Amino acid sequence: MMVKKNIQLDAAGRLKHFLSIEGLSKTILINILDHAETFTSVGERAVKKVPLLRGKTVVNLFFEASTRTRTTFELAAKRLSADVMNINIDASATSKGESLADTLRTLEAMQADMFIVRHQDSGAPEFIARLVSAGVSVINAGDGRHAHPTQAMLDMFTIRKHKPIFENLAVAIVGDIKHSRVARSEIHALKILGVPEIRVVAPKTLIPAEIEKLGVSVHHDIQQGIKDADVVIMLRLQKERMSSALLPSGSEFFNTYGLTSKNLKAAKPDAIVMHPGPINRGIEIDSAIADSKQSLILEQVANGIAVRMAIMSLVVGNASL
Amino acid sequence: MMVKKNIQLDAAGRLKHFLSIEGLSKTILINILDHAETFTSVGERAVKKVPLLRGKTVVNLFFEASTRTRTTFELAAKRLSADVMNINIDASATSKGESLADTLRTLEAMQADMFIVRHQDSGAPEFIARLVSAGVSVINAGDGRHAHPTQAMLDMFTIRKHKPIFENLAVAIVGDIKHSRVARSEIHALKILGVPEIRVVAPKTLIPAEIEKLGVSVHHDIQQGIKDADVVIMLRLQKERMSSALLPSGSEFFNTYGLTSKNLKAAKPDAIVMHPGPINRGIEIDSAIADSKQSLILEQVANGIAVRMAIMSLVVGNASL
Amino acid sequence: MMVKKNIQLDAAGRLKHFLSIEGLSKTILINILDHAETFTSVGERAVKKVPLLRGKTVVNLFFEASTRTRTTFELAAKRLSADVMNINIDASATSKGESLADTLRTLEAMQADMFIVRHQDSGAPEFIARLVSAGVSVINAGDGRHAHPTQAMLDMFTIRKHKPIFENLAVAIVGDIKHSRVARSEIHALKILGVPEIRVVAPKTLIPAEIEKLGVSVHHDIQQGIKDADVVIMLRLQKERMSSALLPSGSEFFNTYGLTSKNLKAAKPDAIVMHPGPINRGIEIDSAIADSKQSLILEQVANGIAVRMAIMSLVVGNASL
Repeated sequence: MMVKKNIQLDAAGRLKHFLSIEGLSKTILINILDHAETFTSVGERAVKKVPLLRGKTVVNLFFEASTRTRTTFELAAKRLSADVMNINIDASATSKGESLADTLRTLEAMQADMFIVRHQDSGAPEFIARLVSAGVSVINAGDGRHAHPTQAMLDMFTIRKHKPIFENLAVAIVGDIKHSRVARSEIHALKILGVPEIRVVAPKTLIPAEIEKLGVSVHHDIQQGIKDADVVIMLRLQKERMSSALLPSGSEFFNTYGLTSKNLKAAKPDAIVMHPGPINRGIEIDSAIADSKQSLILEQVANGIAVRMAIMSLVVGNASL
Repeated sequence: MMVKKNIQLDAAGRLKHFLSIEGLSKTILINILDHAETFTSVGERAVKKVPLLRGKTVVNLFFEASTRTRTTFELAAKRLSADVMNINIDASATSKGESLADTLRTLEAMQADMFIVRHQDSGAPEFIARLVSAGVSVINAGDGRHAHPTQAMLDMFTIRKHKPIFENLAVAIVGDIKHSRVARSEIHALKILGVPEIRVVAPKTLIPAEIEKLGVSVHHDIQQGIKDADVVIMLRLQKERMSSALLPSGSEFFNTYGLTSKNLKAAKPDAIVMHPGPINRGIEIDSAIADSKQSLILEQVANGIAVRMAIMSLVVGNASL
Repeated sequence: MMVKKNIQLDAAGRLKHFLSIEGLSKTILINILDHAETFTSVGERAVKKVPLLRGKTVVNLFFEASTRTRTTFELAAKRLSADVMNINIDASATSKGESLADTLRTLEAMQADMFIVRHQDSGAPEFIARLVSAGVSVINAGDGRHAHPTQAMLDMFTIRKHKPIFENLAVAIVGDIKHSRVARSEIHALKILGVPEIRVVAPKTLIPAEIEKLGVSVHHDIQQGIKDADVVIMLRLQKERMSSALLPSGSEFFNTYGLTSKNLKAAKPDAIVMHPGPINRGIEIDSAIADSKQSLILEQVANGIAVRMAIMSLVVGNASL
């Protein structure tokens, strides 16, 4: 589902929802990254709190279970001093759009200021953003195969920390591109930020149709795909998302597409390795690489809190204008 | 189960628990409504918090799952700056009174200040109110078919906003009266507040025995039942509560008792339509009516936060005297 | 699993984790008890909050469900003004040590300050304490059959309130010693605090091998076991932990080892009765005793909040030095 032009932005072009990287300008993405810099120190203070969202009600509206993502948003909201409500909804109970709308309007009537939405259907957060009143913001915490834009932004933040000039980079994304909302959001973000070379690396069965139209090159050999790359992003093999016919066994996948010390030699010597987590050791990545100095996997997690704090405070600030 | 005379009130007649509308005076109900007025603005502020319950511990003790009701109480408590603990108890594990008493005493030993209790058994909140020490308050968040007094009060609050003179009103309650704790609490509240004409509208199988003794008239035809009414309250068809023999199919019910534009013409032209939610569109209410200007369904939700804040702060204030 | 010497203590001998009573000095235990005294009044104040952990993130990491223990830690943390995250992990998903390590490192990357860990495997909290960085504290909320040190400390606190001179006491622990982490931690604490006479009372099948090496005497007759005791601690019969062959029926157990008014006459007239809860009335303890003046069961619960506040604030204070 395409995000229509202006739903994320107000009339003055300011971010009021955060649903998808698509349709956002380089200026907006850079602004998020710069804003996130100011929050990285909060997590390191003795008192990890700033009062920016004090008295605001943030609702974690998760139609798809995810302790990890829910936790990062809850932590980010609490460090902004918001009140947080966690609501897990069995999607089967609200699968009809009309009933989802009623659920949403009810929560909105409770004067929530922000909905963090995770849903197994692509487009659900946008659907919700179109329903809510002015002054209420929606952040996409992952929808179907569509987008996971806060993950993409924390990855961009992590890349910039180590490789500050996007215009100089070659970035390879390796793994199940087809089913990955993370990959889709990352490709858009890298493109907008000016990364000249973006490659996706996967077996044919895990490459979505017409992916080249997004401006990426497609590779089926990992060593060729990450050759001279500055950044190697490994994706989690989402076994539960794949029909069995498409997926080789874990060890078979590792033999061909797993990131090992040997494969990684093809990338630049100072290449950084990233992964959205949780990692499957010995399936998409070798333990030695995951724990090496090149790996930024845990730094990504820490950056995720700062980036989510930045996005939350930006949209609330804009929505209340 | 009848609530015995004084359990909700202290020796000076002040509200210290809120278990049932029965046995409360008009003065107390009006006081709650007036007090709630002062909280309606809190939800509209940038900082939706007042410090009235700061440092108090509120325990949501739910023996029956209800995300919606639990959420409204949690929000109300957080906006009063209380610390909130959510405890969901599988009622089967505590079905014996003695073990419920032990659970309760243990929680009380943790110095909880208030228990919000929802239970599938009528009388459980009163049972708990009799157990707790002086200084601890219990609020009934729905017990069996007995009572749902905070829902009734938010409905009274919503009615008064639009129809300020209770003594002038005709109010019709339509739907499954028999299994509805909401209806029971509403009838008591309307009666105490001086509403001269209260009607219940349902098929014979969904009318409880001797309901007329509460001072209501019984109707089996919806157009006749809501004729010239000022307020039409639709009830949710609780399919799970009814034995199948009593209940026609959803569409059959809608044809006979559903609120449609056509039926609603029988009521006064400025009649207001209410529903405790969540609504079953096309079963008890037509979508066009639910979304019309006459419908106050979402306003009820917003009022529910203010009314619960009022009740919580009143009982805590009185309990600490 | 033995706790190696220094993991709980920093180089200066200060408590930075709280994993096990073993290996701690009398000075440290007394310091915890004294510190807890200052927190008992917090729960009785109108505003039950102190700002000691404001802006700190406390993660309740429960691999084994326990509403009761989780609630006490959550309350203690909130009364210290910390932000609390509850994370329940299905242990089957993280049963491999490596994956537990990844989960932990991820949570730590979110800048948690403290992990409260409950796990069905003995040694899991220590394993986690060895993984976390300097500045992060781990508290054991019960691991396998190994230890439940905060329960032991709240019991010591409760004993000292009523029987101030540990050196004068005879303490009997009655029930399923073999499967009880509570008993193990209590025995260590009593020993360190100088209690001269510690007895365990149980059928042979519920006495662990070589328990005498801990410095306790073993009794198979309850009247003999609690004779002239100052303190009688009853254990909960953990039916789910025991293979059926070891366990007589509940009523059979009660007849032989249950604490009744008749049995209790064997103890000193002013003996106190304790139980970690939740109690099984009519199995390990008679209702009349549980509700008598000699019973301190509910006082233990209240003391548990104060003792946990003390331990949490001590380890956080030391970890940040």
